[in-house]
Amino acid sequence: MDVRIALTGFGNVGQGLATLLARRGKEYQEQLGVRVLITGVADRAGAVADSAGLDPEALLRAKIAGGSVVCLAGGEPELAGTAFLDATSADVLVEAASTNFETAEPGWGYVRNAMERGMDVVFASKGSLALHHRELMELARKRDRRVLYSATIGAPLPSLEIAERALIGTTITSFEGIVNATSHQILTVMAGGASYEDGVRQAQEMGIAETDPTLDVDGWDAAAKVTILANTIFDADLKISDVERTGIRGVTPEELRAAEAEGQTIKLVGRAERQDGTVKARVSPERRGLRDALGRLSGDDMGFVLFAEPLGKISTAVESSGSGGGITTAMTVLRDIFNLARERGWASTPRK
Amino acid sequence: MDVRIALTGFGNVGQGLATLLARRGKEYQEQLGVRVLITGVADRAGAVADSAGLDPEALLRAKIAGGSVVCLAGGEPELAGTAFLDATSADVLVEAASTNFETAEPGWGYVRNAMERGMDVVFASKGSLALHHRELMELARKRDRRVLYSATIGAPLPSLEIAERALIGTTITSFEGIVNATSHQILTVMAGGASYEDGVRQAQEMGIAETDPTLDVDGWDAAAKVTILANTIFDADLKISDVERTGIRGVTPEELRAAEAEGQTIKLVGRAERQDGTVKARVSPERRGLRDALGRLSGDDMGFVLFAEPLGKISTAVESSGSGGGITTAMTVLRDIFNLARERGWASTPRK
Repeated sequence: MDVRIALTGFGNVGQGLATLLARRGKEYQEQLGVRVLITGVADRAGAVADSAGLDPEALLRAKIAGGSVVCLAGGEPELAGTAFLDATSADVLVEAASTNFETAEPGWGYVRNAMERGMDVVFASKGSLALHHRELMELARKRDRRVLYSATIGAPLPSLEIAERALIGTTITSFEGIVNATSHQILTVMAGGASYEDGVRQAQEMGIAETDPTLDVDGWDAAAKVTILANTIFDADLKISDVERTGIRGVTPEELRAAEAEGQTIKLVGRAERQDGTVKARVSPERRGLRDALGRLSGDDMGFVLFAEPLGKISTAVESSGSGGGITTAMTVLRDIFNLARERGWASTPRK
Repeated sequence: MDVRIALTGFGNVGQGLATLLARRGKEYQEQLGVRVLITGVADRAGAVADSAGLDPEALLRAKIAGGSVVCLAGGEPELAGTAFLDATSADVLVEAASTNFETAEPGWGYVRNAMERGMDVVFASKGSLALHHRELMELARKRDRRVLYSATIGAPLPSLEIAERALIGTTITSFEGIVNATSHQILTVMAGGASYEDGVRQAQEMGIAETDPTLDVDGWDAAAKVTILANTIFDADLKISDVERTGIRGVTPEELRAAEAEGQTIKLVGRAERQDGTVKARVSPERRGLRDALGRLSGDDMGFVLFAEPLGKISTAVESSGSGGGITTAMTVLRDIFNLARERGWASTPRK
């Protein structure tokens, strides 16, 4: 069956999605019974929509050639908001615009609009989730819409699949994770003897760190992920500002060496715990042993650990394929779309 | 809503299930909207059934006092098969009898019977899955029944949640895992300098190894798990005899010391890979690095790693709570029951 998606934002993730659909769309259709059609893309310069589906390769060419999807034939600089969503006839909104931790706009407006029109929402951006969790879930419940966001919490970690399905019925008391790849990469380079500045530069050269690495190195991105995870796992209503936050700027090569001398390492760890009905969350550098579920990781690996009664410590990690953040995150968005399609009965291949 | 379960077998897992329902049944009902009722238990000496629900504590007392559930008031030595299933009015069969790798009986007979009567099946025993995979899945498809078996593949590892949901749309090329806790415990003790015999004895004293440890130390249990995992993940039709199998009897303390001298360790690893349409599976001792996803583990920990294009290496591990195999496996059976209840719309708490 066809699943039509409207995309807000056409950065790394949007382009990754177009790339995967161009390369593997036929395979997905054969294996999963789902044909994913991009029926609209909105970016800063305008939008393009076609309810019959846009050619993903043409979208990529337009973006590369002109800097915006508006350069594709049919692109309209004025197309936005309601008119854009209408023109796409989409079943699912994929919110993949640049994350905005102050207002969550323009994504948040699109999200509300989409749900009111009966669309489900898959998130790659964190703004709406980190700022408006309760309201978002309430709206989804009222409209009987599904909201999925695997891509926002350290893609492609299977953290929520574990918390919500494999640990159903257990009592999750706390979690911890390395959920920001950029700061992890910088700490790994520093553990090899480099300065913080060299670490940042090297991560930038690898295309992992942004020109302004603030969101990563000061722990904002990790704090947003911890917020989303804590709100989901503990049914809490944290805002990103509720997370106690220390980034990696203060970590020195000397501290890393001292840790190493004791068979340890330093990682930027995000954590939350529930105690007596309140949830406390924190992001900060922590010493970890080298055989620890998080301490053993390096480079841009990510890891997540849940503590659950009566089972113990359940961990997961992703050691990367080198295929790059855009493709990895896009694949994680697709996983939400495919699982949604199965759940909604859109997939023609029956669930085993 | 009520979910009625019929139980074949009342060993560690069955008793664990009764213990969890006695202790936490009310909690499950409040949190998940599902009241799980044991409406029948069959063991070697007979069976007891009550479609209104048996008291889990009374079942445990009867088992402890008399060695069988048949000692409970209402227990019938002759009650078995169709008559037993009828008397339970159960929605779900929980197949938790001693695993039989030769005929899978009496479990396999119960399973077919249950599906023909419209029951779903949750497995704790591996026999039917390791010997009759294709037939079982075909029967489930024809009768539109669900077959769940998280507890049979190294409970409580979330291996299938990751493979089937988090990696949907990716191409899984291979997997590997430490899926047998007993042999892992023995190797861990041996890595500390003990002989194989001492390792076995210690695992027996801890209640991890059976009096006859053959199924664990010769790799049969791991091979059965690899068979089930490979058949599910690769849609293969392996039998347990298709798995190349070397156990841990041949591992010496000297080899473990030699590995340690090189910063490595030896683990019993089960693995399977798909290449050009064929699936090869193996269980054997392997050298692993100490920061490796599997090599870092010890004691009765278990771990599982999937290799998936385009994402890379996705791992998961369980470091135990010390609550014991019976409770852990029973909790994993309950997870299948709870997820089934959600899927079937039996749970009154809506899926988020």
